[in-house]
Amino acid sequence: MSAMLEEIQEQPAALEGTFRAERKPMARLRNLAKQRHFRLILLVARGTSDNAARLGRYLLELTTRTPVSLVAPSLYTLYHEKIDLRDTLLVGLSQSGESPDVNMVLESARKRGAFTIGITNEPDSPMTRLPHEVFFIGGGKQRSVAATKTYTGQLLILYMMASALGSGVSMKAVSRIPALAAEALKVKAKVKYLAEHYRKINRMVVLARGFNYGNAYELALKLEETCYVVGKGFSTADFLHGPIAVVEKDFPVILFAPPGRAFQEMSKMAGRLNKYGALTLAITGPGQRMPRRTHTIHLPTSVDELYSPIPYIVPGQLFAAYLAEVKGLDPDHPRALKLVTRTI
Amino acid sequence: MSAMLEEIQEQPAALEGTFRAERKPMARLRNLAKQRHFRLILLVARGTSDNAARLGRYLLELTTRTPVSLVAPSLYTLYHEKIDLRDTLLVGLSQSGESPDVNMVLESARKRGAFTIGITNEPDSPMTRLPHEVFFIGGGKQRSVAATKTYTGQLLILYMMASALGSGVSMKAVSRIPALAAEALKVKAKVKYLAEHYRKINRMVVLARGFNYGNAYELALKLEETCYVVGKGFSTADFLHGPIAVVEKDFPVILFAPPGRAFQEMSKMAGRLNKYGALTLAITGPGQRMPRRTHTIHLPTSVDELYSPIPYIVPGQLFAAYLAEVKGLDPDHPRALKLVTRTI
Repeated sequence: MSAMLEEIQEQPAALEGTFRAERKPMARLRNLAKQRHFRLILLVARGTSDNAARLGRYLLELTTRTPVSLVAPSLYTLYHEKIDLRDTLLVGLSQSGESPDVNMVLESARKRGAFTIGITNEPDSPMTRLPHEVFFIGGGKQRSVAATKTYTGQLLILYMMASALGSGVSMKAVSRIPALAAEALKVKAKVKYLAEHYRKINRMVVLARGFNYGNAYELALKLEETCYVVGKGFSTADFLHGPIAVVEKDFPVILFAPPGRAFQEMSKMAGRLNKYGALTLAITGPGQRMPRRTHTIHLPTSVDELYSPIPYIVPGQLFAAYLAEVKGLDPDHPRALKLVTRTI
Repeated sequence: MSAMLEEIQEQPAALEGTFRAERKPMARLRNLAKQRHFRLILLVARGTSDNAARLGRYLLELTTRTPVSLVAPSLYTLYHEKIDLRDTLLVGLSQSGESPDVNMVLESARKRGAFTIGITNEPDSPMTRLPHEVFFIGGGKQRSVAATKTYTGQLLILYMMASALGSGVSMKAVSRIPALAAEALKVKAKVKYLAEHYRKINRMVVLARGFNYGNAYELALKLEETCYVVGKGFSTADFLHGPIAVVEKDFPVILFAPPGRAFQEMSKMAGRLNKYGALTLAITGPGQRMPRRTHTIHLPTSVDELYSPIPYIVPGQLFAAYLAEVKGLDPDHPRALKLVTRTI
């Protein structure tokens, strides 16, 4: 079995551990939020961590009612901008804690008055020394180059932060996420069977809306790293503004379609794609009906849309791991990649 | 000739017209900036307009030293968030002025205290009635579904706004952009010749860094709309964090490589891609040397990196238009698309 598949299956235990370990440190953040008013929240990350940040943006903006923005690192590293960051909360995310650009932004933002937080999996990394506060994913050493358990670990910490800093995310609901991830693993056999149908693809689109938007990007990235498939994540609304023209007979599309505010739009999109003859695959809730000719993966347990991203990415991760297997590729050691990427 | 090719070639005149028509209205913005302090700038758009907004983010953040964020429309349209937008400047961009989501955000933001600006090409569209201030692209009716002249028109207005609201972008330098776009059209024959080499591709990566980051996304979108090629734009730094694994022999990559702060990184990337046997094509400055085996398009005139995006997208637009021709496709009427897309 690939380390990637092993790590996908370690997620419920890893998430459980993260929740227990970080619950107390999170109380400090809750206190901080009582004392300080942040007028802006910034997130900075690369790769998989950046996809986690995409969900972080939604969670933190909705719960804190504070504008949240994803930093463009080059503004700091190449163009040395000098924006005023007092009353700003800046969160850097990096599995390895070694990405120079993310660390440079943390350092520079702290100097300019921001309260800074790091989220990393590596207790001895440079990232642990730069910010005011550090939260640990604590998922155990990542062995596969393709990040899975560190992605969901970052998401979990972002949920906990959203709960600590604002209102609308319940810590009790967050505590149930590890069990939901365990439930999601039950679709393994179905996903393995479906992956066979996609053996020959070299490109794929992944669609979502709202809370699962970051998941669309993350699954697309997994397809690139492990299957050498050019994967492109979209909000369905953006997809309609042009890119939908690429769809033809047998064009592969995956849709994240949890029940909730975005469901109707996703279902309508699946119907339209099927009319074009696309090979559509929807990840959706138990018993949820999708338009005719849609392949479906039904998660076994219902979950509120707000808490769906962690359980819903699990079938996506499994899909990438099995598709790599079907294609005869080693997802743990993608060509051209190492475990730590250093960019500025 | 396709309407797309015609409109690409109308750009110098259209830009000249936009500059002349909007110069005076822009003075109102300059006065406003003296009276009001904005603590945040938000941009909201879809499709091509969203790619223009990506450059707007860099320009406005660097010149105003105010944080700039791209709005996630679903937070407004699906989840009805209630963030405080006093002291916020919100800019909506839409060629047609009819995108319900962009207009909903403009309307909702105005109610919550933001100063709102619309940028559109349609003088009678709903967008002209919602915000405090409207700027017009004034490029004449868009005939091809694939936007070209309205994209560069939006960029020009964003440069003018950056100049009016902050410091670092000179209106004199902006006034020279239309002539630079005319110069860029001279590479037509070379681009047409090169496009032949890419006849069979069905996927492509477009790389850039910094000011040309939005151009990478825009060229990728043009490839999707007009050539049915899955195009994916990346910052080179993000590309290194995973997606580079997709590159194999003859994998097609376009790089925006204007001389400037980002050049060295782009050149290094071209060298690395060539080692993997990729089919790399760099758009770069006059006489600029690129690593061996890189196809190159040299713009005939030097331009400061800051003002490079408009002239540099021109060869990209030409590439998409000629590749569509080579593939026997009609870029003016992509399947599944209409001139106006309505999403929420």
